[in-house]
Amino acid sequence: SANPHLEAMDEDVLYHLDLGTRTHDLPAMFGDVKFVCVGDSPSGMRPFAELMQQELGLGGGGGRPADLCAGTDRYATFRAGPVLTVSHGMGIPSISVMLHELIKLLHRAKCRDVTIIRIGTSGGLGMEPGSVVITDTAVDSFFQARFEQAVLDAVVVRSTELDKGLAEELLRCSEELHDFLTLIGHTMCTYNFYEDGALCSFSSEKKLEYLKRAYNAGVRNTEMESTAFAATCGLCGLKAAIVCVTLLDRLEGDQTRAPRAVLLEYQQRPWRLIAAFIEERLGLAVKT
Amino acid sequence: SANPHLEAMDEDVLYHLDLGTRTHDLPAMFGDVKFVCVGDSPSGMRPFAELMQQELGLGGGGGRPADLCAGTDRYATFRAGPVLTVSHGMGIPSISVMLHELIKLLHRAKCRDVTIIRIGTSGGLGMEPGSVVITDTAVDSFFQARFEQAVLDAVVVRSTELDKGLAEELLRCSEELHDFLTLIGHTMCTYNFYEDGALCSFSSEKKLEYLKRAYNAGVRNTEMESTAFAATCGLCGLKAAIVCVTLLDRLEGDQTRAPRAVLLEYQQRPWRLIAAFIEERLGLAVKT
Repeated sequence: SANPHLEAMDEDVLYHLDLGTRTHDLPAMFGDVKFVCVGDSPSGMRPFAELMQQELGLGGGGGRPADLCAGTDRYATFRAGPVLTVSHGMGIPSISVMLHELIKLLHRAKCRDVTIIRIGTSGGLGMEPGSVVITDTAVDSFFQARFEQAVLDAVVVRSTELDKGLAEELLRCSEELHDFLTLIGHTMCTYNFYEDGALCSFSSEKKLEYLKRAYNAGVRNTEMESTAFAATCGLCGLKAAIVCVTLLDRLEGDQTRAPRAVLLEYQQRPWRLIAAFIEERLGLAVKT
Repeated sequence: SANPHLEAMDEDVLYHLDLGTRTHDLPAMFGDVKFVCVGDSPSGMRPFAELMQQELGLGGGGGRPADLCAGTDRYATFRAGPVLTVSHGMGIPSISVMLHELIKLLHRAKCRDVTIIRIGTSGGLGMEPGSVVITDTAVDSFFQARFEQAVLDAVVVRSTELDKGLAEELLRCSEELHDFLTLIGHTMCTYNFYEDGALCSFSSEKKLEYLKRAYNAGVRNTEMESTAFAATCGLCGLKAAIVCVTLLDRLEGDQTRAPRAVLLEYQQRPWRLIAAFIEERLGLAVKT
């Protein structure tokens, strides 16, 4: 953490996580965390935490992992051994609030050598739906590798590069799973999921032309958190990666037509990749 | 709705609400909605929906209102007579996705004369914690009454004025309740809840000086959705209001020290105000 004020505070309340330095022994609760996996919806992250619990052989005693921040429903937080799972909601402001409190949490808990991975779903560009994209660089809607953050009434521009070595390590893990297409590419972060629809202000043709330009700029998928995630983790020295499955090919249209069961299987692809990666890091056998 | 494409679509999937024109009879489900109340957390909105159910004398048969979008936990949606309650998560992108699908929903359901109110919590400026602010104008972090929205790779600037008559009507209702301070003022919408903390890039003094300038510009509270809410509802011709309680006075510091029970009572103040407003609109007796 890069905050001189932190040490000066007698108490630190992580309001949205419903945790605090006076109310919780953070080093005891979180000090041994080595991997943090974040994703948008609470119901999406709980089964991932359950999968990690099984894969790491922590099922003993059984039962679902408990939400460590049960006092709030803004974010859900689960533990499975050294893996902490946190939901972050939709969009940059929501993930920024969570990352801010998470980074303070990791600092207060005295965690060391933490790898953080955002896993989720996204819109794809020019690939078969169900393909998985590992992000090398997050770009904004102008295809620029930057995150513009308002700090009071000034705008600070931050870099959005992610850890290249980590991305390649993840790609190698996916090649060992070899049951879905995985590639490394740029991820475009948008402020609004819909640029059309109820508030249509341009033609479908114009949008398709824009998405083709994005593709030609190296963008392979679009979501709503990558630039803030990359910039914030980079600034705080956390090794970070983004692994998102694509639910559709936006060059073919923006309404998801696949049945929910198919979408759920797609959603689990990044989970299996991350599980394999963490098992390899921990020196456990990869289950396939 | 201002979207020529809508009529042309054979099917419209409201993905994040888990509703669709082919899977749901939207006019039958939602056609008689007259009031839409939105707020950030699902657990915050359910008790509000329960309160509305009681206040409108719809408790008959009892039971908690069911989440109409149970297939997703991104947003929670409840009905109490003509009152639809929807959660929107934190920040502009999250509320934008919900508003987009909600506005399509109201259009598809053929709703008429809908009043939409955002209720929530906020940081106050220069007022006793627990005071309620009715927003006349939402401003950005530069104190400007504008919402800059990226549409593809262009930036569109929209107005953030709210309905003055509706704001005054709400103020009159609060005067009838006369048990907490309510006032009309500007609301400042920020992209990040924390401009300091883990990523501190300026001094507390600089922040306090900024917040004082905001106060002098007429800002009475700060939250994270108001500019997008005001601009989107205005653009679609929905009469809209924002009513937020202040949990603390940011001029006195940014950590909430009040016990959770006190914060919960604060949170209920806008609910009681909106309940009184809706009862008055429906010609029911105001319970005090």
